[in-house]
Amino acid sequence: MDITVVTTRAEALREAIEGELAERVPEHVSLRYFSDPGHLDAMALSAEVALGAPDVLAPLIASMPSLRWVQSTWAGVTPLLEVGQRDYVLTGVKDIFGASMSEYALGWVLAIERSVLVHANASQWEFRIDRGLSELRVGVAGVGSIGSAVAGSFAGMVKEVRGLNSDGRPAKGCHSCFGTADRLSFAKNLDVLIMVLPDTPGTDGLVDARVLSQLAPGALVINAGRANALDLPAALAARESGQLRALVLDVFDKEPLADDDPLWAIPGVYITSHTAAPTRMESIAGVFVDNLERYLSGAELEGIINFERGY
Amino acid sequence: MDITVVTTRAEALREAIEGELAERVPEHVSLRYFSDPGHLDAMALSAEVALGAPDVLAPLIASMPSLRWVQSTWAGVTPLLEVGQRDYVLTGVKDIFGASMSEYALGWVLAIERSVLVHANASQWEFRIDRGLSELRVGVAGVGSIGSAVAGSFAGMVKEVRGLNSDGRPAKGCHSCFGTADRLSFAKNLDVLIMVLPDTPGTDGLVDARVLSQLAPGALVINAGRANALDLPAALAARESGQLRALVLDVFDKEPLADDDPLWAIPGVYITSHTAAPTRMESIAGVFVDNLERYLSGAELEGIINFERGY
Repeated sequence: MDITVVTTRAEALREAIEGELAERVPEHVSLRYFSDPGHLDAMALSAEVALGAPDVLAPLIASMPSLRWVQSTWAGVTPLLEVGQRDYVLTGVKDIFGASMSEYALGWVLAIERSVLVHANASQWEFRIDRGLSELRVGVAGVGSIGSAVAGSFAGMVKEVRGLNSDGRPAKGCHSCFGTADRLSFAKNLDVLIMVLPDTPGTDGLVDARVLSQLAPGALVINAGRANALDLPAALAARESGQLRALVLDVFDKEPLADDDPLWAIPGVYITSHTAAPTRMESIAGVFVDNLERYLSGAELEGIINFERGY
Repeated sequence: MDITVVTTRAEALREAIEGELAERVPEHVSLRYFSDPGHLDAMALSAEVALGAPDVLAPLIASMPSLRWVQSTWAGVTPLLEVGQRDYVLTGVKDIFGASMSEYALGWVLAIERSVLVHANASQWEFRIDRGLSELRVGVAGVGSIGSAVAGSFAGMVKEVRGLNSDGRPAKGCHSCFGTADRLSFAKNLDVLIMVLPDTPGTDGLVDARVLSQLAPGALVINAGRANALDLPAALAARESGQLRALVLDVFDKEPLADDDPLWAIPGVYITSHTAAPTRMESIAGVFVDNLERYLSGAELEGIINFERGY
């Protein structure tokens, strides 16, 4: 059986699969790796299985008539959804980002609420008593597998954790959950809003001026999901007015963010480089080989994407 | 019954006790507050109960012949131990610092291991994949109530948590515990060493050059307990050689640290202003009133200090 692997980080993925996982790939399975999609040959295009980055795979799948299963190396699969082709099974990587995203969110909340940034840059004694986390209300917008992990990491440290999802169904790690229709109630008096929403039509501009106006004065907003979900001009206005104490952004309409982008210079706006939950090739390789074993044995795959919902 | 309250923050403590807790203090109990120990009158010195800061109380207790119980407002009670007088019951505040200390330790570990400080000061895109916390070995030196809370806050996020205490008895939150005699084994290959040791004769210089040499290359050391436990020149040498990636210090032989102290300027040395686990007056007041109810009913007090052990 032929598997085509195509992603700009193909060599790192090859190392991860041919390393510790090598003995779990049967001999009759042949993986071929491409870091440049322009180099795919006829054999690569006739593969039954593809593993790769959604943006690289999207323009190729119409030319892959034998394709039955695509394993995405990203959690977000929007580029593949936009192609419209749905005659294959698409699986995403869901459960490998929760820990990393939790570290990111906790790290930034503590950096700001416990004055880590202030002390790191101080050159004299500055005694202060921060309010700490115990009295904070935290909201996680997007409580799928990643968001639930984030919610759970805060649950024992703060006063309240609320979740936001499409229909308000209960989610792990959250004391209460709200549907997107109730997002103003979700946002009411939150001290911290952590956004880990996927890029779907339903999330466009979900956190807008009205939602931001519901937050507690001096709230902290972190967007580590996708850029489309946050109305950035509204967030910057809220930051400038002091309604927001800080705005931490990991995702942008266009990445990398240009060196001369004005965002870099705004006080209280912290920028990270899409590093909140980076794809570790060892994790991707593990998810893929687990699913490969299921595929070969005819079992149901993990992480199947519903094309209608988009996740 | 007369209670003398003496601490430089007496007014804040009065507010906390006379606020939400007022109705739990019986009418026959009279509290008198002094922020200046020089103002204590004969009635104050004849009190049966004292509540206050150990350094302020230490020179006074020999003049307080009716004293039966002293509630310290600090976790560390060394100044009172040094007086030598032991004809009263001394209680400390133990369980109110765990959450704050955990926030501090997690905040600094994440700030460094997840490059929060790097990104906060960056002015251009810098994609990097940090190793994160999941593969780290973390050691907590001093696993009493505070240290166990710290250990527990890391337990689900890292590979291994080790504790150090006097005799290696098991402690909550730790996968394994070591006694001080085995401190080299405790330190072996630790990526993060968090010190929350009390200031007792047994902890002087406990973390010295030999202990530091056992840590994993590029380890992070955080001292948020007491300054005496860390051999600072050895730690600075280890930082300079690169054996330590970073050194985070919250406690110093002399506080506040002078503006011209060379420590402020050493790269990779981060200084906080004894703010790791600040005394919140509301918490102190709560511990005191809880214990007062026990005292009045004849029940055993919480947090009794063993004068021999010093904690």
